[in-house]
Amino acid sequence: MRSELAAGLAERAAQGLYRRRRVLESPQGPVVRRDGREFLNFCGNDYLGLANHPEVVRAFALGAERWGAGGGASHLVCGHTAAHHALEEELAVFAGRERALLFSSGYMANLGVIAALTGRGDSVLEDKLNHASLIDGGLLSGARFSRYGHADVASLQEKLAGCGSRRKLVASDGVFSMDGDVAPLPQLAAAARSYGAWLMVDDAHGLGVLGANGGGSLEHLGLGQEDAPILMGTLGKAFGVCGAFVAGCEELIETLIQQARTYIYTTSLPPAVAEATRASLRLAQSEGWRREKLRALVRRFRAGAEALGLELMSSDTPIQPVLVGANEAAVAASERLAEAGVWVAAIRPPTVPAGTARLRVTLSAAHDEAQVDRLLDALAEALRP
Amino acid sequence: MRSELAAGLAERAAQGLYRRRRVLESPQGPVVRRDGREFLNFCGNDYLGLANHPEVVRAFALGAERWGAGGGASHLVCGHTAAHHALEEELAVFAGRERALLFSSGYMANLGVIAALTGRGDSVLEDKLNHASLIDGGLLSGARFSRYGHADVASLQEKLAGCGSRRKLVASDGVFSMDGDVAPLPQLAAAARSYGAWLMVDDAHGLGVLGANGGGSLEHLGLGQEDAPILMGTLGKAFGVCGAFVAGCEELIETLIQQARTYIYTTSLPPAVAEATRASLRLAQSEGWRREKLRALVRRFRAGAEALGLELMSSDTPIQPVLVGANEAAVAASERLAEAGVWVAAIRPPTVPAGTARLRVTLSAAHDEAQVDRLLDALAEALRP
Repeated sequence: MRSELAAGLAERAAQGLYRRRRVLESPQGPVVRRDGREFLNFCGNDYLGLANHPEVVRAFALGAERWGAGGGASHLVCGHTAAHHALEEELAVFAGRERALLFSSGYMANLGVIAALTGRGDSVLEDKLNHASLIDGGLLSGARFSRYGHADVASLQEKLAGCGSRRKLVASDGVFSMDGDVAPLPQLAAAARSYGAWLMVDDAHGLGVLGANGGGSLEHLGLGQEDAPILMGTLGKAFGVCGAFVAGCEELIETLIQQARTYIYTTSLPPAVAEATRASLRLAQSEGWRREKLRALVRRFRAGAEALGLELMSSDTPIQPVLVGANEAAVAASERLAEAGVWVAAIRPPTVPAGTARLRVTLSAAHDEAQVDRLLDALAEALRP
Repeated sequence: MRSELAAGLAERAAQGLYRRRRVLESPQGPVVRRDGREFLNFCGNDYLGLANHPEVVRAFALGAERWGAGGGASHLVCGHTAAHHALEEELAVFAGRERALLFSSGYMANLGVIAALTGRGDSVLEDKLNHASLIDGGLLSGARFSRYGHADVASLQEKLAGCGSRRKLVASDGVFSMDGDVAPLPQLAAAARSYGAWLMVDDAHGLGVLGANGGGSLEHLGLGQEDAPILMGTLGKAFGVCGAFVAGCEELIETLIQQARTYIYTTSLPPAVAEATRASLRLAQSEGWRREKLRALVRRFRAGAEALGLELMSSDTPIQPVLVGANEAAVAASERLAEAGVWVAAIRPPTVPAGTARLRVTLSAAHDEAQVDRLLDALAEALRP
């Protein structure tokens, strides 16, 4: 095993694709510690700055005291506590849907939903830049799986027109995680409806952030359950804890309880995680100023970056990638930023298409204007030709 | 969507296969509350009784105060904290391997490992009673996937002999989750070695429980890394919290960091979960009396059940299924037990083969002898012909 795997690792290193982890010595936040020094952090997904909110932390600690450390069993055996149940009910209200179902992660939710709802003879159609978990769900389902061009409604329509399956599922990220753009959901919904397909939206990076009430890309675009009957959201990004949920009609949720293998055959999340998430969900709804502040920081960053001539992508979300191109150049720029005390992750293939390596800047309501300005100065320096 | 899914739900109900959740009103433990009353609980996986241990709960609460509520990003971006890192190092020492890697769940670990290590042209061979996540990993990998008879080494050898792939992965549960039997790991290891295949063991239900030091089914059978180079263990059962890990040689772990999609593309678990697990891992190792007590309770249960003429399976582990056969009969027996204040889950197809519905009794070091005796009395009454 050793020598065979070592050869694969050496090949990856030679392509400039080796991935290395950094050990965080502080909590997640706008300023973090690693390698014994402080960094301004622009690579987390704690968009609303709730991961360290005292009320969330307190709910977490009290939850552990109230419920113990673990769920101790799967939801269907004896691991479904009143804490999980209350969070599901609150998520359903938040999402404006009849019911919601907790999963251990967005990855598991996407795999579980797609494989539960589709199988041999069905068709799954996905945006080619969808998150890995949606792609894997399509592959695992056994359905005919095809990808349409990124945000390309005509490409989707063409594929739907040629699709002979009775059951058809169209799945798209709401906000694309490595690009930051919002999917053309009204057009996707119309296309799905006209061909009798179901639309599933993974709004991992939109929920809590977009829409006046944080309802995500669907609220932002004025869409509801009839447009996108399957909504997946994660709880480890804007909500600052971990896990995920699926929201939809009663029959959808009951079907997932019966058939989603990643729901049935796994230990429930610690009830304390559910209690912490209940607290952050309340804050995400009540503290609208977090979304306002975040939007202002996004505008400030884009204006500054455009003035510097940086190559931005078409994004109004807190995900603001700066295109670099070559793998080595992206890594080198990330290292120069680190020398200046600014942490921005370099994202390379296969996470993004070849030739589009980038610095993925993410902003949070926990940042302030001065920190965004320091980021801009450091980017100007690091990307100087 | 509604009417189409409703039809599927009605069909499932007609087959006696409808799954319903119960809401736990108390922490996991030997006595729990649901529906406003107390039940003796014999369906959790908290085998060592650590899910409510004060030191684990305290580590959880302190972890939340120290680290905040969430990891805030994936491990490879900026979500890998010193808490995760320390747990990985301690798990490697515990497992007697060079390194260990945390995953959000056992499901994600199994999917990630199998799909990272195998692909088109390779072969994956699995016990037909393996956990759903190992099966799904084999299906997702794109490798040629085949199942051998349950614990049937000759069947495996035959398939290995007929297999033309250069890379071959054999995967087995260590302890089978719905049967409680231990896999014939020495024979599986010998077969894998003689055909140049890698053996992967999912020891979700063995780690912490089997072996003098809780090293699981491998320690129990005197096997090491050279026999089973890929070890997967979960942290939500004997260790009482949540999550999972893979342990093995340096090259294995580095390959997973580079290639396991379920590792790369997901938010890290809350660091507080890692801190709680560090505490439970210490207790699981230092408090050997928990394993001793659990073994004694297993012996007591089996002796009592045999005296009652109940149909047990060939298991010396805390998973002690009582075979019933028909779906409705298993559900009815579970309901009679509930009336007597004893909670044992009825397990039906497709979780187990058709015609083998069962009451899945699980024991914990948190139980006492009187509780096991009450269980036996209730089973005698509930299964009276």
